Amino acid sequence: MDRRSFIKKAGLAGAAATTLAAPAIAQGNQTWRMVTTWPKNFPGLGVGAQRLADRITTASDGRLTIQVYAAGELVPPLQSLDAVIDGSAEMSHGAAYYWQNKSQGLSFFTGVPYGMTSRELTAWVRYLGGQEIWDEIYDQFGVQGFLSGDTGTQAGGWFRNELTGVSDVQGLRFRTPGLGGRVWEKLGASVTNMAAGEIFQALQSGTLDAAEFVGPYNDLALGFYQIAKNYYFPSFIEPGLATELVVDKAKYQELPQNLQAIIRDVCQAEYDSVAADFQANDTRAMQTLINDHGVQVRRFPDEILEAGANAAKEIIQGLLDSDDALTKKTAESFVESLRVVRQKTEGTDSLFMQAREKYFEI
Amino acid sequence: MDRRSFIKKAGLAGAAATTLAAPAIAQGNQTWRMVTTWPKNFPGLGVGAQRLADRITTASDGRLTIQVYAAGELVPPLQSLDAVIDGSAEMSHGAAYYWQNKSQGLSFFTGVPYGMTSRELTAWVRYLGGQEIWDEIYDQFGVQGFLSGDTGTQAGGWFRNELTGVSDVQGLRFRTPGLGGRVWEKLGASVTNMAAGEIFQALQSGTLDAAEFVGPYNDLALGFYQIAKNYYFPSFIEPGLATELVVDKAKYQELPQNLQAIIRDVCQAEYDSVAADFQANDTRAMQTLINDHGVQVRRFPDEILEAGANAAKEIIQGLLDSDDALTKKTAESFVESLRVVRQKTEGTDSLFMQAREKYFEI
Repeated sequence: MDRRSFIKKAGLAGAAATTLAAPAIAQGNQTWRMVTTWPKNFPGLGVGAQRLADRITTASDGRLTIQVYAAGELVPPLQSLDAVIDGSAEMSHGAAYYWQNKSQGLSFFTGVPYGMTSRELTAWVRYLGGQEIWDEIYDQFGVQGFLSGDTGTQAGGWFRNELTGVSDVQGLRFRTPGLGGRVWEKLGASVTNMAAGEIFQALQSGTLDAAEFVGPYNDLALGFYQIAKNYYFPSFIEPGLATELVVDKAKYQELPQNLQAIIRDVCQAEYDSVAADFQANDTRAMQTLINDHGVQVRRFPDEILEAGANAAKEIIQGLLDSDDALTKKTAESFVESLRVVRQKTEGTDSLFMQAREKYFEI
Repeated sequence: MDRRSFIKKAGLAGAAATTLAAPAIAQGNQTWRMVTTWPKNFPGLGVGAQRLADRITTASDGRLTIQVYAAGELVPPLQSLDAVIDGSAEMSHGAAYYWQNKSQGLSFFTGVPYGMTSRELTAWVRYLGGQEIWDEIYDQFGVQGFLSGDTGTQAGGWFRNELTGVSDVQGLRFRTPGLGGRVWEKLGASVTNMAAGEIFQALQSGTLDAAEFVGPYNDLALGFYQIAKNYYFPSFIEPGLATELVVDKAKYQELPQNLQAIIRDVCQAEYDSVAADFQANDTRAMQTLINDHGVQVRRFPDEILEAGANAAKEIIQGLLDSDDALTKKTAESFVESLRVVRQKTEGTDSLFMQAREKYFEI
């Protein structure tokens, strides 16, 4: 009920915005609609979508004003990309892997099991040919994608019982979507997907034994800790989760060069903002979970990490062998680039982090 | 000789730009001078400064055109900040730790031994109060600083001989500047600083036993591998090196809000671009060093990593105990934030990187 009246009000607000925009257009100003896949004020991601919109509005001095519609306000969350394709919105803020039904290759631009960290992903997209392949995929639908945020490595999930090895995964009823879900399926879990708002109830009623959502910053609000006290790290199925801004390509190309540049620049700035937000606030949420809610923070047993790596390899190999030429091309570019970028991660950055962890306390 | 004629030509080009800018100002457009601490086309950093300037020019549609002067073209590199303070330039692109003589606290905004990674630094600056303290420091000089790039974790240095432990560091004549140099001094090295262009000659003549500069992407061009074949990783004294854009604060505040936003947004976008550039291209340069130049890639012995951590702790403790109130405040904020942000790094991101390194090959 509340939800419906909320959507109804949001619809009215949208109509009002359209009416108000009319005189602005006469002065050469435009108002664009941005639909999102995130609930309003969703930590990190929904907040980031709104901030991104506001930054474009500010930097363009209102010549391009962005009106944000949270999930469900204009269209249901998983129709956001279609809303841009059919012209009912000019922009969508979400995650590329939601649109795997359009192209399997899109998974790589969000994150895949045992794939790239947020820093590696931006190196691939900006310096090793990733953006160009992404453009090829989205050109088929008349849209253009930009990286617009990243959560960093996520949490591995909430488990009612402790995990001692792969045998504990057999038959485990686990909410975890996408390619990550396919990894857990290969490990023996009974994987289901359900909307964020349904997870708590399913855990409580016993329909689920475990659930994976995002990380402490988002998970705290959903209350999973009340049912499943074992919080496992790290996620090996979502080493980073990049968000995207998708724009109507024809309308984007009609914009003057400087407004096009502002959209690109703000998206890239937000890639940093969102990651910084999670880096700062995941930890704060984690402290609350541990200190106030008695959550047990655990590490996945090595056996599960190793079995997960083998499963991830099979799934990525399947994409490398895809009959769809663009999916194959994306997978090849991703895997080749991962081999390059992980060398710096492992030979330099990771060594520093391990040395600091071992030797430096202040 | 070549260098002088180059600077002379650059000077003329600068004068021409000023002349051309005059009619533009009449239309409300402005041209700002950006001096930099980097040689022209210096990989990652000099290239990044130029790209940052171009992005502001493009996003502002030329209302704010940025004219870049590489190190020495308008002022010597280490007078870049003074050039902004005395009004001979509106912007400086460099690194905050070059100005430690103005405030010791500035080191923290570039990177300190055993300090923050690039992702942790942006979390501190943007979400945990770092920017506000940085503003307090720079307010004293009438300027404003923004993060504008980061190299990621650097290389540890080029050593003529292999290092087996701390005893090999005694009396080692090592080029390594700043707080990192003080760490190596505490380990027993005889530390000197010298300009990039002098290092090769000093290694060749035997004046130096070792030298640390940036990482593969920059070091390759300087030819150190011809003399010192042992390339050590990781740098524990520069876990990240952030660059800054400094602007004349009064002139910045006179800009319309949207141009102020464009400068901020582009700086933040460049923080990502520079890091992505190093992530992609450090590795490529490393391959050339190994395959074409016979470089031996080595890891510092644990004994050196541990002694380095103790030395770093002493140095940071000294800044925590500083008589200068702002230096003390900066150190306290940095250390407190490091304790927060490293929990996500160590509890999530680093665990993933280690699991991938151990179990996942494709």
